[in-house]
Amino acid sequence: MRILPTVEFPEDLKRLPRADLEELCKEIREFLIESVTATGGHLSSNLGVVELTVALHYVFDIGPDKDRLVFDVSHQSYVHKILTGRRHRFGTLRKTDGLSGFTSQYESPYDLFHVSHAGTAVSTALGYHLGRLHAGKPSGKAIALVGDAGIGAGMAFEALNHAGALPDHDLLVILNDNQMSIARTVGALVRYLDKLRASDRWSDLKRDINRALETIPVVGTPLANWLPRVKEAIQHYVNPGVIFEELGFRYFGPVDGHDVHRLISTFRDLRDVKGPVFLHVITAKGRGYEPAQKDPSAYHGVSSPKKAPAEPTMVKGVAPEAPPDTRPCHKHFGETLTALARKDPRIVAITAAMPSGTGLSVFASEFPGRFYDVGICEQHAIALAGGLAAGGALPVAAIYSTFLQRAYDQVVHDVALQSAHVVLCMDRAGIVGGDGATANGAFDITYLRTVPRTTLLAPADLPEMERMLAFALGHDGLVALRWPRANFRVAPLPGNAGPIALGRSARLREGEDLAIVAYGAVVPAALEAAEALRAAGLDATVVNARFAKPLDVAALEDLAARHALLVTVEDHALAGGFGSAVLESLESPRARIVRIGLPDRFVEHGSRDDLLKRYGLSAPQIAERCEAEARRGALK
Amino acid sequence: MRILPTVEFPEDLKRLPRADLEELCKEIREFLIESVTATGGHLSSNLGVVELTVALHYVFDIGPDKDRLVFDVSHQSYVHKILTGRRHRFGTLRKTDGLSGFTSQYESPYDLFHVSHAGTAVSTALGYHLGRLHAGKPSGKAIALVGDAGIGAGMAFEALNHAGALPDHDLLVILNDNQMSIARTVGALVRYLDKLRASDRWSDLKRDINRALETIPVVGTPLANWLPRVKEAIQHYVNPGVIFEELGFRYFGPVDGHDVHRLISTFRDLRDVKGPVFLHVITAKGRGYEPAQKDPSAYHGVSSPKKAPAEPTMVKGVAPEAPPDTRPCHKHFGETLTALARKDPRIVAITAAMPSGTGLSVFASEFPGRFYDVGICEQHAIALAGGLAAGGALPVAAIYSTFLQRAYDQVVHDVALQSAHVVLCMDRAGIVGGDGATANGAFDITYLRTVPRTTLLAPADLPEMERMLAFALGHDGLVALRWPRANFRVAPLPGNAGPIALGRSARLREGEDLAIVAYGAVVPAALEAAEALRAAGLDATVVNARFAKPLDVAALEDLAARHALLVTVEDHALAGGFGSAVLESLESPRARIVRIGLPDRFVEHGSRDDLLKRYGLSAPQIAERCEAEARRGALK
Repeated sequence: MRILPTVEFPEDLKRLPRADLEELCKEIREFLIESVTATGGHLSSNLGVVELTVALHYVFDIGPDKDRLVFDVSHQSYVHKILTGRRHRFGTLRKTDGLSGFTSQYESPYDLFHVSHAGTAVSTALGYHLGRLHAGKPSGKAIALVGDAGIGAGMAFEALNHAGALPDHDLLVILNDNQMSIARTVGALVRYLDKLRASDRWSDLKRDINRALETIPVVGTPLANWLPRVKEAIQHYVNPGVIFEELGFRYFGPVDGHDVHRLISTFRDLRDVKGPVFLHVITAKGRGYEPAQKDPSAYHGVSSPKKAPAEPTMVKGVAPEAPPDTRPCHKHFGETLTALARKDPRIVAITAAMPSGTGLSVFASEFPGRFYDVGICEQHAIALAGGLAAGGALPVAAIYSTFLQRAYDQVVHDVALQSAHVVLCMDRAGIVGGDGATANGAFDITYLRTVPRTTLLAPADLPEMERMLAFALGHDGLVALRWPRANFRVAPLPGNAGPIALGRSARLREGEDLAIVAYGAVVPAALEAAEALRAAGLDATVVNARFAKPLDVAALEDLAARHALLVTVEDHALAGGFGSAVLESLESPRARIVRIGLPDRFVEHGSRDDLLKRYGLSAPQIAERCEAEARRGALK
Repeated sequence: MRILPTVEFPEDLKRLPRADLEELCKEIREFLIESVTATGGHLSSNLGVVELTVALHYVFDIGPDKDRLVFDVSHQSYVHKILTGRRHRFGTLRKTDGLSGFTSQYESPYDLFHVSHAGTAVSTALGYHLGRLHAGKPSGKAIALVGDAGIGAGMAFEALNHAGALPDHDLLVILNDNQMSIARTVGALVRYLDKLRASDRWSDLKRDINRALETIPVVGTPLANWLPRVKEAIQHYVNPGVIFEELGFRYFGPVDGHDVHRLISTFRDLRDVKGPVFLHVITAKGRGYEPAQKDPSAYHGVSSPKKAPAEPTMVKGVAPEAPPDTRPCHKHFGETLTALARKDPRIVAITAAMPSGTGLSVFASEFPGRFYDVGICEQHAIALAGGLAAGGALPVAAIYSTFLQRAYDQVVHDVALQSAHVVLCMDRAGIVGGDGATANGAFDITYLRTVPRTTLLAPADLPEMERMLAFALGHDGLVALRWPRANFRVAPLPGNAGPIALGRSARLREGEDLAIVAYGAVVPAALEAAEALRAAGLDATVVNARFAKPLDVAALEDLAARHALLVTVEDHALAGGFGSAVLESLESPRARIVRIGLPDRFVEHGSRDDLLKRYGLSAPQIAERCEAEARRGALK
């Protein structure tokens, strides 16, 4: 490499002659492919925005003081990271204590927000710009870079609708249109974008039409009156982007997102055009890397260290660590639901842009007519589920725990309040790993258990997941299951094979000295901890809670009466979580209650195992804590 | 009245000759004005949809078996209620155990959903229709009636985007465009609707244009090739609704929503047009009632029994019950914030379509350039606040507790995770009264306290609100305050005048037998309860918790050590709420902890006082419960 090593920061880039930029882009691609296929991470999306990012940094003064670039989701910020002093850290990408896979102001002053949920960039970029003005500080251009899936999120529409009606601001929204978010982008808006893309092809003819218009003779009075309007109509039509224009934006494009020179001249033109401006850029995901370009969904995130993952999109990093006799929860869920759907035609499945991440791809293949991928529209997904249930279908919505936050009001209002029978399957519950703070599912037990008419449960092995799914489909109201982005045992845990009954726990191990009550994914660690405690001379009862709501209060009361110490374990925030529910349920317990779970902080990225250890949720640490608490209790 | 008394159910309406319908509409209006000005309720919005609702029931078979009408928000469902057997119950409207102000399947089989949040109807109507098909049941037309404010909610866009891309369904979306939601509708989409409305005026000229087009001679080859396209362009332009057309809907309208005959013929035309269809209807809010039509915002909801409320929109029902030396929280908030903003130019205020309900109208008048009403777009409102804070402004977002659920993910992701200094002021916290289950703010303590980097506090009197607001503006991160839709004392409660310090409670009364720790609005009742307990020979300590996060753990530990009984009181769900946080904070307390708050159910509509009594939160009932628990403890 000749040029990339000379570029550490945007000022280095700006000094390059334009003739070097194509070579720089080539070298950035090489670097990305080499680096990301080694570490794992988002590859295709970053290969798609090489020229775009280079051109943005070449033309604008992106940094803390002048222009600001806000990435929507920000999984496509690697090139930006490379150009802002972070190239040397790419070997640590998404690893414990390493470089984040997303932008973060805690990582670099060139980043404005720590993000990864879609559709937020227009709101926050607009807000930032207005905030600078209110604070009397200088503000350059606020640039929001949004993908074609993110632009379909309801909140992006809300933000465009607002920004387009506001005067006096300098917002540039760039639509990075690669016709593909994680899976294929869905929705009517996409057909519309297709049309805009197609319109580019006849741009020469547009000129002809514009010229010809001037030569039309006016026939009759009515047309004479309306000729200006008719001309405007034609202008409107041959210059596309009417939706965005009607929302108050000036629409430019579509522009080829891999022509760095055309991008530079476009940005120079737009630099002094005050907002709201909407620029439509066409890119190809995985550009320059043949396997990625052929199957960009499979390379959205790359597994480490496998170079060609069999499973698309969201399995990165799981396979290498997987212990034997286990398999990924999401795969098992998808297959189980598909099998159940063969027997019950009422079952329909819903996802919000995560067909493979949730494991539903297999359902979608077998039952395309009973499968709804609504795009990054969690609100609509859950309200739709409420409606489907009212109509008599049996909707199963598979949404990551963190993204369900987007649909909290719909859970309350459009499902629970309606007493609608909807099964919610939350993947990515608990610590998620490389995606970090924005992707952890740390709050769902709390925010769901306060909602009336809900049932919450979590399996601890795969056969239990199957029985719980069957239970959920046969129960009523909102039934929510959670599991992590991890592997579960294929065989039942010892003592865990019994049937699922509402609000009934399973006692997996009988002891005298203390009781450990675990919920969901952490049950195996609790069992291991009990084994370790035996070596320390402590005999622990271990209970798989199964339900967080309703709790098995009788069993808990009994445990608390028969033990001096009761320890709850959960892969979830302590505040309001499972252990908190246990506390609420016990009336004057004899046992001292100790709760193990996530502290009151956002958990960073890293490997799930590292983080479980860091937060005291691995088996040895659960054992250690139990022992310390038992000794402490004995001293009193 | 001649006709209305003969119409109990839709079948009676269908039997009427068309000539009678105008008279029927007139009588319905008289009935509404008479009835709603007596009971209180939403008047203007219902006066605006008289003809629309009559025509819908006249043409379609709306009921449990065939066509289904889903009202968005459903405050405009009174005419539908009158026509579906509920006219005789209008004297109980919104009263305890009376007729709901919204649709509810628990009230009538003619209603499909129990709703009142905006923007949900397209999702749920679509879902219902698809659910019927999946379940193999017959389904007629699914009709979603949405206002021009609701259509701007992000989730409505998500639903249109989805529905427009789906084949084979029979969804009719009716836009009830009255250019006014509660306040004036905002956003770029509104300007677009204005344009569509205007287009109606030149409909004759459209015909001329269409004719003239046919006479245009073709000049030159390029145009000849493109003439069909140009014609399509003009067609497109003179036939408006392009945004909706581009989203995959067939657009019809705009239609005069007060011409019952034109509506009937339009509906007959559309009855057999398969969806997705979008019909744009223009109505006038408050139609037929002069004071309401002049100031529809003031008559959105009518106070009972005052006929001409001085304060617009959302004060209904408060004034008559207000004790002396108190005033509405929202008014005091608006004035206090305005006064603070005079001294601090960084302060900006944000609301989501509730400028008067939140008390911010006064701020908006004085600081229009620092005020953002984003419409019914809570997600954008909160993400915008995060951006504003990043830019250096000091955003104060005033949103009802129940509507903040719509922005939960943005609270987590775009504010808390960013460590953005945003002040959230939640009105309608706790039991709300006449609006019922969908408007109660029963979950906010739970869903906010589990989020890291948040501070939660609640005032118990108006001077404390002032000090807390000043504290919140001087603190950092997300600071959330809550107060009810009720009046607070103008003077400080005894012992409550001290300064606000992070995580510090205020001891208002010293006793020996038990401690009552109350949070926010219920503190006065706790004090009263303590007085009542004295008569029963029990001397209670009373503490105003002030903070739900961080809790005053030292004070709580001390209380729990010095009393045999500690009672927490909150106007909020018990699950995960304030009392739950107290339980979590105490390590092996000597005191027995009893929590008083809302049970695990959706609290119905009724007067706030009735409901506080019903759920044990009035002073006598708090006293009763404390006494019973104290006696019970003593027996042990």
